[in-house]
Amino acid sequence: MAGNLLYAQSGGVTAVINATAAAVIGAAREAGDSVGTVFGARNGILGVLRDELYKTDHWTEEDLRRLDQTPGGVFGSCRYKLKPMDEDDREHRRIIEVLKAHDVRYFLYNGGNDSADTAFKISRIGERMGYPVTCIGVPKTVDNDLPVTDASPGFASAAKYLAVSAAEVDKDIYSMHETSTKVFIMEVMGRHAGWLAAATGLASRDGTGGPHIILFPEVTFDEARFLERVQGCVDEVGYCMVVASEGVRGEDGNFLADQGKTDAFGHRQLGGVASVLADLVDSRLGLKNHHALVDYLQRSARHLASAVDLEHARAVGRAAVEYAVAGHNSVMPVIERLSDDPYRWQIRRAELSEIANVEHMVPKSFITEDGFGITDACRRYLRPLIEGEAYPTYADGLPVYGNLPMELAESRLPAWQG
Amino acid sequence: MAGNLLYAQSGGVTAVINATAAAVIGAAREAGDSVGTVFGARNGILGVLRDELYKTDHWTEEDLRRLDQTPGGVFGSCRYKLKPMDEDDREHRRIIEVLKAHDVRYFLYNGGNDSADTAFKISRIGERMGYPVTCIGVPKTVDNDLPVTDASPGFASAAKYLAVSAAEVDKDIYSMHETSTKVFIMEVMGRHAGWLAAATGLASRDGTGGPHIILFPEVTFDEARFLERVQGCVDEVGYCMVVASEGVRGEDGNFLADQGKTDAFGHRQLGGVASVLADLVDSRLGLKNHHALVDYLQRSARHLASAVDLEHARAVGRAAVEYAVAGHNSVMPVIERLSDDPYRWQIRRAELSEIANVEHMVPKSFITEDGFGITDACRRYLRPLIEGEAYPTYADGLPVYGNLPMELAESRLPAWQG
Repeated sequence: MAGNLLYAQSGGVTAVINATAAAVIGAAREAGDSVGTVFGARNGILGVLRDELYKTDHWTEEDLRRLDQTPGGVFGSCRYKLKPMDEDDREHRRIIEVLKAHDVRYFLYNGGNDSADTAFKISRIGERMGYPVTCIGVPKTVDNDLPVTDASPGFASAAKYLAVSAAEVDKDIYSMHETSTKVFIMEVMGRHAGWLAAATGLASRDGTGGPHIILFPEVTFDEARFLERVQGCVDEVGYCMVVASEGVRGEDGNFLADQGKTDAFGHRQLGGVASVLADLVDSRLGLKNHHALVDYLQRSARHLASAVDLEHARAVGRAAVEYAVAGHNSVMPVIERLSDDPYRWQIRRAELSEIANVEHMVPKSFITEDGFGITDACRRYLRPLIEGEAYPTYADGLPVYGNLPMELAESRLPAWQG
Repeated sequence: MAGNLLYAQSGGVTAVINATAAAVIGAAREAGDSVGTVFGARNGILGVLRDELYKTDHWTEEDLRRLDQTPGGVFGSCRYKLKPMDEDDREHRRIIEVLKAHDVRYFLYNGGNDSADTAFKISRIGERMGYPVTCIGVPKTVDNDLPVTDASPGFASAAKYLAVSAAEVDKDIYSMHETSTKVFIMEVMGRHAGWLAAATGLASRDGTGGPHIILFPEVTFDEARFLERVQGCVDEVGYCMVVASEGVRGEDGNFLADQGKTDAFGHRQLGGVASVLADLVDSRLGLKNHHALVDYLQRSARHLASAVDLEHARAVGRAAVEYAVAGHNSVMPVIERLSDDPYRWQIRRAELSEIANVEHMVPKSFITEDGFGITDACRRYLRPLIEGEAYPTYADGLPVYGNLPMELAESRLPAWQG
């Protein structure tokens, strides 16, 4: 069953999601007659609803090479939750209509848990509407909270960037601690899963240096124990580096950094756990402190992408096209680890139903008993993922990131009145 | 006049100050009989007062290579202001006594404006006490606020890191702006001089993309004009990236981010201008926003050092030793620009008296008339400084930063009762 292919990006973007996009387009071109045109939905699923599909046929090989090394999402992404199909299926039906209007037979949805769920649902409604579409989920998320896959493309580059930054900041603080900052707090992403915070633990390669305290969303924050550990660390080594996940929660179950705002999915919008902790250190211990809020820098730091992550991102893109052409509906290419050292891996097919809406947290065995650090098992898992430096090319001191020529396909349907 | 050499690091450390240290040690070794032992003061001038001098003779060439690529200050640095010599000269006299006790004839002080002043004073009191010491200031500061020199080593690496980060975050925000963040605010260092903020302007290479608004300490903050510009930018291009110097001041002359704390120099300790601006955008415009506080990450990001900066850092170290051996007292090696494109430069000798306590701000001609951007003249100045990527070597996914064997020389004097 030949036809066109539609690729869409969903949720938070990463440093390597465009490498997946470039791999999808490249693989589709190599697939010859099996795949017609490759479209990219403008701003994710919203572009599908609105019949706003970018063309890619005019992109040159050089365009694709630049795309491969450009952070962010080239087609635009979105945070938009479709209405539950059993309450109101108009959005899902509209999606099928748009796919049909553009002769799209393959739908590749590149995202996290929510997106796997969306792809799963679209795969079912297409058949019911008499327009079967092969739906493939393509993994991506800096949070690394997808189940089944060894890692989510995007995570390892953010992890590498944060681990390297932690190692660098440690040298800085150590140099200055006698007369300057005693406590440094770095806030990293991770609302429910503390994988990025865990990754900074790699910075302390030989057990010396920071981070001295890692705060995970998986471990309930205990103010007294935290303050005691900070003071103990300052007493012992002169300074203390703390890494805090944005999603750290107190004993009442509330986020320490809850700002009272929510996003389109009803997720609480966080930010500011570092400043909450800094205020605590200030008021309760009176120790001079600084804090950093890395925010989007960590998920867009393509300048320090992990080579392993980049290979993963490309491989899931290629495999997704292969599965689509082979007619494997409702699946996701995932990464399977074969060995830790040397790191060997392969791509295998997983069912979207196994993945949709399941969050993969940092397991207990990866967190030290005191709750403030990572175990050797965690190091064995994380270490190979950050291996290799996949640098972009530079001109005039700056990376050559792509400004690709964007051109929308002609709309085929009346405007969406969603 | 042969003798030992004492090198000390002062004030905020940088990604390349250790490259200067390694160059000093290397050049002193090459100078043969002219220079005896090279000492490094522990925690800057405090180590001199306390007679705590690290030895370096046991460091191998491999140690020096690792030092060259390690951020932070290997000997430790400090923020400590000597008492004014005309009020109480005991500290300055003690410094001369320690130098004398260790047969130090060359004193190299690697720092910013305050350090140039200290080196200048020590050069004078030595002669008065009958123990002449050749004092050399060695330039360093991420703030780039030293006069005379084309750039301060350390600045250009931080500038490159911030410009690259701004380019990356711009791609990220652009991808997501329809349904997510509309306004992103990145806070960078720069208390009085907005050089680092200015450098992020390079990210917008062809006039498209962020940063759309740069806030300099040199330009009085006008809330109404700022909010109008943010809203206008969001209306026009869909999103707005703001870069704010920590030292932005309002019309009352106060820092927007004044936390009411001061450091050892009586400088106000800042932090949080981004969150102040985010609150404004929230409450006055109701636009979804995120902010990043880069903090120490920007001055320790050795993983993305500018090759030009690294060459500068090494060159001032080598020249400082050369000037010392030649008996040029009370001078500083500075960088002189010979041409913009291609960038050509040389090291020349400047008098410490020209440099001490003079702050070099971003000139009016470098800031656009509206106060929110950088001019072509500014780009011509900045562009060559961030050229070239001086990557460190890696092992297991992390940079190989040095943990050098630190060994103190035996104290020669009674403990300091300062």
